[in-house]
Amino acid sequence: MEFDLIARIRARVQQGPTRGDVVLGIGDDAAALCVPAGQLLVVATDTLNAGVHFPDGTAPADIGWKALAVNLSDLAAMGATPAWCTLSLSMPASDPVWLDGFLDGFLELAARHRVALVGGDTSRGPLSVCVTVHGFVEPQRLLRRDGARDGDDIWISGTLGDAAGALLQWRAGGDRDPGLRARLDRPTPRTALGMALLGIAHAAVDVSDGLLADLGHVCAASGLGAEVEVEALPASPSLRAAFDDERRIALQATGGDDYELCFTAPAGMREAVLAAARLAGVAATRVGRVVAGREVRAMRADGRAWETAGPPGHVHFS
Amino acid sequence: MEFDLIARIRARVQQGPTRGDVVLGIGDDAAALCVPAGQLLVVATDTLNAGVHFPDGTAPADIGWKALAVNLSDLAAMGATPAWCTLSLSMPASDPVWLDGFLDGFLELAARHRVALVGGDTSRGPLSVCVTVHGFVEPQRLLRRDGARDGDDIWISGTLGDAAGALLQWRAGGDRDPGLRARLDRPTPRTALGMALLGIAHAAVDVSDGLLADLGHVCAASGLGAEVEVEALPASPSLRAAFDDERRIALQATGGDDYELCFTAPAGMREAVLAAARLAGVAATRVGRVVAGREVRAMRADGRAWETAGPPGHVHFS
Repeated sequence: MEFDLIARIRARVQQGPTRGDVVLGIGDDAAALCVPAGQLLVVATDTLNAGVHFPDGTAPADIGWKALAVNLSDLAAMGATPAWCTLSLSMPASDPVWLDGFLDGFLELAARHRVALVGGDTSRGPLSVCVTVHGFVEPQRLLRRDGARDGDDIWISGTLGDAAGALLQWRAGGDRDPGLRARLDRPTPRTALGMALLGIAHAAVDVSDGLLADLGHVCAASGLGAEVEVEALPASPSLRAAFDDERRIALQATGGDDYELCFTAPAGMREAVLAAARLAGVAATRVGRVVAGREVRAMRADGRAWETAGPPGHVHFS
Repeated sequence: MEFDLIARIRARVQQGPTRGDVVLGIGDDAAALCVPAGQLLVVATDTLNAGVHFPDGTAPADIGWKALAVNLSDLAAMGATPAWCTLSLSMPASDPVWLDGFLDGFLELAARHRVALVGGDTSRGPLSVCVTVHGFVEPQRLLRRDGARDGDDIWISGTLGDAAGALLQWRAGGDRDPGLRARLDRPTPRTALGMALLGIAHAAVDVSDGLLADLGHVCAASGLGAEVEVEALPASPSLRAAFDDERRIALQATGGDDYELCFTAPAGMREAVLAAARLAGVAATRVGRVVAGREVRAMRADGRAWETAGPPGHVHFS
């Protein structure tokens, strides 16, 4: 099974755009690649498992897209320029039609980010997709989780809560908004924004587990706390239409799978942040600030604490 | 679940040896790494699935060892010096005791090869281990599959067939040789030999799918054929004791999971090959030669064609 599938993947990759820095791509024991002199190599890896990271019945093209997107999102949170990826694909049986669909989504997103698929393997097993992505960044400009400073603004790209809203609708089984579902299935990695924020932002993380949880990682790494105004969190019109305010705010503050960037920057950089966001073609919204302490406080506009009924962080599908 | 397991992995990694070229390891969105100037980055990725790549009931430490070993073996086949790895681990449930056992094997092999575990993820799902390894090599010296030349000797490191023999014994359920089983569970990646062969060998591949299949990849990539004398294939005393000659030869020629190197080198390099093997502490045996054509011919000592009753290549567990 493996050889046929690999030949199929290789043929599809060879039809797409190529990169001059790939010395050896698919077809040897390993890939051989040229990292630009003076740049750091940035590496992230993430696996998607059927029924855990995407609902059963998700279209293969959406699985392919998302498997790469969640990894590119990690590069975005470092400010790295994407370059190459590997794909390790486990499938219950050799299914070339499924594979072609998967590659449609995977390679479409790869082409948009000029990412070359340079290697990997296929094997038999429950459906599981492990992707490793590689990018570069200048050593002094790397965005880290531990760079936040007391008094920094906290910013969010795009809107929050759509993916978790789609999941809630999927679980409930009633009316389902295709716009929300598209945000769950085809998240947009904010790589252009991450790169534009180099030299502007102090710290960044991508929102995969839920804003409060992920901001908590930044605070823990930086030895600081945060105040977040939950009513200031950016919401899409679709999310506002689909849920009442309390439900919506909970989805925005604690729902996972948004793959927006949460970043901190000094107050003197507000214009620069907005200019970077315009350049990257995405909104940026100020939602709070970094403070002394260790706690992430979610607050209403009047300063009262906000509490959700549900558990914080990412809720899995099954 | 994920955060606790990652904290556990991180704590174990921090107890081990560190590398100065790791700018950011476990704990951010991605790892940040320094590739030596002028070197190519070499990347391989491979997944092991329960019941497919190792028998059910395999000790967690052996799974950890093997998951890294099969990847290091790919670097060995390129002649690359190992440096870093990432680990993406899917487990049915959070099981810290299992994880500790797994890390015992994984980190033991990592320490032997001075490989730093720099990132990854954990998720819920059927047991599956995806590892990506990174190493370096000088651009002009990279060992490739497509470098074989007409008239080259074909060499094998170590011995062949032990892993497949262990698998056959395990399936049969009778007497099982622990020495053979150790070769299945804890393969030795031949990284030192791969590095020692730079400038000596023309082409290399690691024997994961079975010698004739893997040599076939070298021949296909190089546009050449090969003649292999099956009775010259190196066998361990344990394998000789456990199987009759015909059975043994079939295991050696077509059994997978050995992770020895198969490489080609010009006849004028025989002394250099043997010296490299001595340096690497492993035997090297000449088993055939590269010829014109496209075919891999398995032959007996008297020149008759050898044919196995079973299918060529790697046979999965279930």
